[in-house]
Amino acid sequence: MALVTGTRFARWGTPPRPVGLSEAAEQFLADAVGSPPPRPPVPVGDGAVPDSRLTAAQQDALAGIVGADAVATGPAERLGHAAGCSLTDYLHLRQGDLDPRAVPDAVVRPASSEQVRDVLALAATAGFAVVPFGGGTSVVGGVTVPGDGARIALAFDRMADVLDVDEDSMTVTVQPGITGPVLERILQARGLTWGHLPQSWERATIGGYVATRSAGQSSTGYGRSDEMVEALRIVTPVGDLVLGRGPRTAAGPDLRQLFIGSEGAFGVITEVTMRVRHLPTVMRYEGVMFPSYEAGVAAFRDLAQYRATADVMRLSDVPESTATLAMSGPQGRIGDVFERYLSLRNVAGGCLAILGWEGYSRRLVSARRAAAWSVMRDHKPATLGASVGNSWRRHRYDGPYLRDVLLDRGFIVETLETAGHWSDLHRVRDAVAAALTATLRHDGRDPYVMSHISHVYETGASLYFTVIAPAAVDPVAQWAGAKAAAMAALTASGATITHHHAVGRDHAPWLAAEIGSTGVALLRGIKGLVDPDDVLNPGVLVPPEPA
Amino acid sequence: MALVTGTRFARWGTPPRPVGLSEAAEQFLADAVGSPPPRPPVPVGDGAVPDSRLTAAQQDALAGIVGADAVATGPAERLGHAAGCSLTDYLHLRQGDLDPRAVPDAVVRPASSEQVRDVLALAATAGFAVVPFGGGTSVVGGVTVPGDGARIALAFDRMADVLDVDEDSMTVTVQPGITGPVLERILQARGLTWGHLPQSWERATIGGYVATRSAGQSSTGYGRSDEMVEALRIVTPVGDLVLGRGPRTAAGPDLRQLFIGSEGAFGVITEVTMRVRHLPTVMRYEGVMFPSYEAGVAAFRDLAQYRATADVMRLSDVPESTATLAMSGPQGRIGDVFERYLSLRNVAGGCLAILGWEGYSRRLVSARRAAAWSVMRDHKPATLGASVGNSWRRHRYDGPYLRDVLLDRGFIVETLETAGHWSDLHRVRDAVAAALTATLRHDGRDPYVMSHISHVYETGASLYFTVIAPAAVDPVAQWAGAKAAAMAALTASGATITHHHAVGRDHAPWLAAEIGSTGVALLRGIKGLVDPDDVLNPGVLVPPEPA
Repeated sequence: MALVTGTRFARWGTPPRPVGLSEAAEQFLADAVGSPPPRPPVPVGDGAVPDSRLTAAQQDALAGIVGADAVATGPAERLGHAAGCSLTDYLHLRQGDLDPRAVPDAVVRPASSEQVRDVLALAATAGFAVVPFGGGTSVVGGVTVPGDGARIALAFDRMADVLDVDEDSMTVTVQPGITGPVLERILQARGLTWGHLPQSWERATIGGYVATRSAGQSSTGYGRSDEMVEALRIVTPVGDLVLGRGPRTAAGPDLRQLFIGSEGAFGVITEVTMRVRHLPTVMRYEGVMFPSYEAGVAAFRDLAQYRATADVMRLSDVPESTATLAMSGPQGRIGDVFERYLSLRNVAGGCLAILGWEGYSRRLVSARRAAAWSVMRDHKPATLGASVGNSWRRHRYDGPYLRDVLLDRGFIVETLETAGHWSDLHRVRDAVAAALTATLRHDGRDPYVMSHISHVYETGASLYFTVIAPAAVDPVAQWAGAKAAAMAALTASGATITHHHAVGRDHAPWLAAEIGSTGVALLRGIKGLVDPDDVLNPGVLVPPEPA
Repeated sequence: MALVTGTRFARWGTPPRPVGLSEAAEQFLADAVGSPPPRPPVPVGDGAVPDSRLTAAQQDALAGIVGADAVATGPAERLGHAAGCSLTDYLHLRQGDLDPRAVPDAVVRPASSEQVRDVLALAATAGFAVVPFGGGTSVVGGVTVPGDGARIALAFDRMADVLDVDEDSMTVTVQPGITGPVLERILQARGLTWGHLPQSWERATIGGYVATRSAGQSSTGYGRSDEMVEALRIVTPVGDLVLGRGPRTAAGPDLRQLFIGSEGAFGVITEVTMRVRHLPTVMRYEGVMFPSYEAGVAAFRDLAQYRATADVMRLSDVPESTATLAMSGPQGRIGDVFERYLSLRNVAGGCLAILGWEGYSRRLVSARRAAAWSVMRDHKPATLGASVGNSWRRHRYDGPYLRDVLLDRGFIVETLETAGHWSDLHRVRDAVAAALTATLRHDGRDPYVMSHISHVYETGASLYFTVIAPAAVDPVAQWAGAKAAAMAALTASGATITHHHAVGRDHAPWLAAEIGSTGVALLRGIKGLVDPDDVLNPGVLVPPEPA
């Protein structure tokens, strides 16, 4: 059965907005990856949505818990909660061939922890699965959960309030369905900010961030979402947990860390208390060019290890720097002047970095920036000034829009990410790039593989890869092969299977490489303790038991 | 049966060193708490150590695993591993009335993860318990584990090596038995430091720090021990876990956080990889006086929330400031000048703070200090100069020695600690101080209760209480009543049951107040998954199941 989903669901932006490619960008793409035939999505239509597998009695029981208007069974609602935002999800949605068994049989919108509790109890007795669905931005199959039995999407539009702001302790307590833009509007009116800014910002929810250990573009300075959680309420099939007292504790294992990153498989996060900050009054963003990738990596490592980090730190490798400058750098005569400047400073052909400092006094921000420059100096960087930094800030959310355009043009484009210790980092990058290149080479043409570091720690850094290649006849299979090769390469080189995108279904086969078979068995045992009927997000996070 | 243990075991220092009280200190104590009759420990003797409950065959089997010279069954060895360092432990050791069922039946010293694995397997089949014993510095009954069945202390003297130093990633991998002084000697020879400096530093082991989520005096700047762990190897009865790949991950729940803080009840930590730092080249320590405790707390909160923390931050309340200045402040004519300075600056009778900055350039340390002063200025502090800060550094490990002297003098002296959000902090301090005062009031005389903040977070801070009172006829019962009242007060006011001393047996009754009954049930379930025969540290961390 074909589901005709088309552009309605597989398009970023709320609402989608067109993104154009500059002439320079068109030229660069044609030179670098070629000009495949366009692949527009199949046209929008009502399509054949499978019948709901919920019985009328089950639908009535759900309506009895959350109210009749909070149980949606129409095709558009159900299709809108059938997949996330991975390339694979997007390809299926654009091609109209999503697995119909992944389409939820109802979208249920609870309004309280009590209603979540009652829905889980009903699911256990009635035997349907529950897929918590926040912004639906998973890129790892975390909300794409096909199966033979009935399943509902649990949506949090009605649990999206700020419950409490403690301006003395600088914490905010929210319900899981609130998004970043709404939360920031409320906080910034009080002079506060959360500061969590991933590319999924427009759509993703706080509950989703916490359930997936999301990191954002400012996480080097503001901390990852998992580091900002003070307390949680989690509704599980065996009872509620309220975890987190005070700013830190030594009271045994940190059970919060079992539920942070549990991706809806261990319980439903219904309240989150997070650390917030004063809204910064001084911001200084800057572009920097290093003579080589090695120099840039060494500088970023030193910034972390001599405690002189900026709040935003981003370092592109040579391919990404080349692409960025070619597609959005200065052109024409200004471009020539720019090139001469780079040559004069011995950084031509090098690597582009963005550094951003945020703070509460010009003096301290200047002192931090001066400290950073004194640490970096050995690695011979040249400043590109504030305009390059500010330009990056303006375009920081453009990536997902651009992906839509490139998919329309007949490319596949996807990202994958990891993190490794400094001593492993070059090896990881080279191995993943080689694996992607080898598996996506086609008609003698290499894919374009580029990467950047966007989160820096004292002991290592993240690596974020973007790959562009002409779509093959079956782009889903094309990408599956490349992804598997990349995962094999990164696990073999000591890196983590994911730095900030979670496990979902797509990474579950590699979880044993991360935590060992004893670790996987322990997770499975814990799943059995908190969700004995396997109601929650089956197959996500914990890989199916080997036969 | 009386165990004659005396000073041999209940004395801090390796070896114990005498600490004298100044004349001013003697006077202050007499005025503040009185002059009880001395209570010297019972004399050293061989005592009656109970027979080992291990059969000869079991002892042979242990010797077969670790070697005959690594199984000790002599009375001194066994008594030396029978208790930790809480006031209650010390009182029992000094009185010679330790519960003989807590005396381990052998001290076993494995040399490898394999030997630990084999010992746990033997314990499960032979039915004896295993109490992992690092430095033996638990102040919460974590290594004082009485029971009717046989038990062994698992000591780590033979697993105390540095396994690897990665100077690029700035990590060190160690075995669990290494102590801070040994590790720092090795690291500092290479220009590195771990920077974890709790008062138990002389004796405690890295494995113990990690198993209890220890924090140290520099944790505001260096991070807590639990935050410095990159990777762990844990040997459990159901298999080994090797956890931690790369600097951070989003690969599901953080299973490391189940074993960090698991206090030997979930497994034996046999390898720890930790983040280290470059040895600082610039240090600046300073004493500061605030006009009031409220002003000091507000200043410390602002330092954290405007991201201008020092690496060491310590703020004494009025009673602790008064005691510190009376006992070790300037005396005589210099004391008069000092008093006039305090009055002139409007901080007389106020609160004493220590701030310490460590770094790699004079410029950045100065800039950080300047930023801190500009944040604090609103709260009207007066500097006391570097000498007060440096004096604090010199005496930072004196506390445990002083306790021995005060116990000899007939006082009881104990500490307890917690952490709370800024908005709760005054309430927590007042409630705990009131509970201790009410329960330890005797013959119309109040105990001396003082506290300080020693770890600062953006959302709250730790509170560390010290109480001194004349010992009653039964000081164990005297302290048990006071401790229970303090725990009730702090749980009622929203604080954590322990900020850095772990749960042990002493805090286990309050664990449900921290993580709820569902949380305790989950911990008990996880204990069943990893230690199905309840071999490891029975009764520690997870409270016994209600009948």
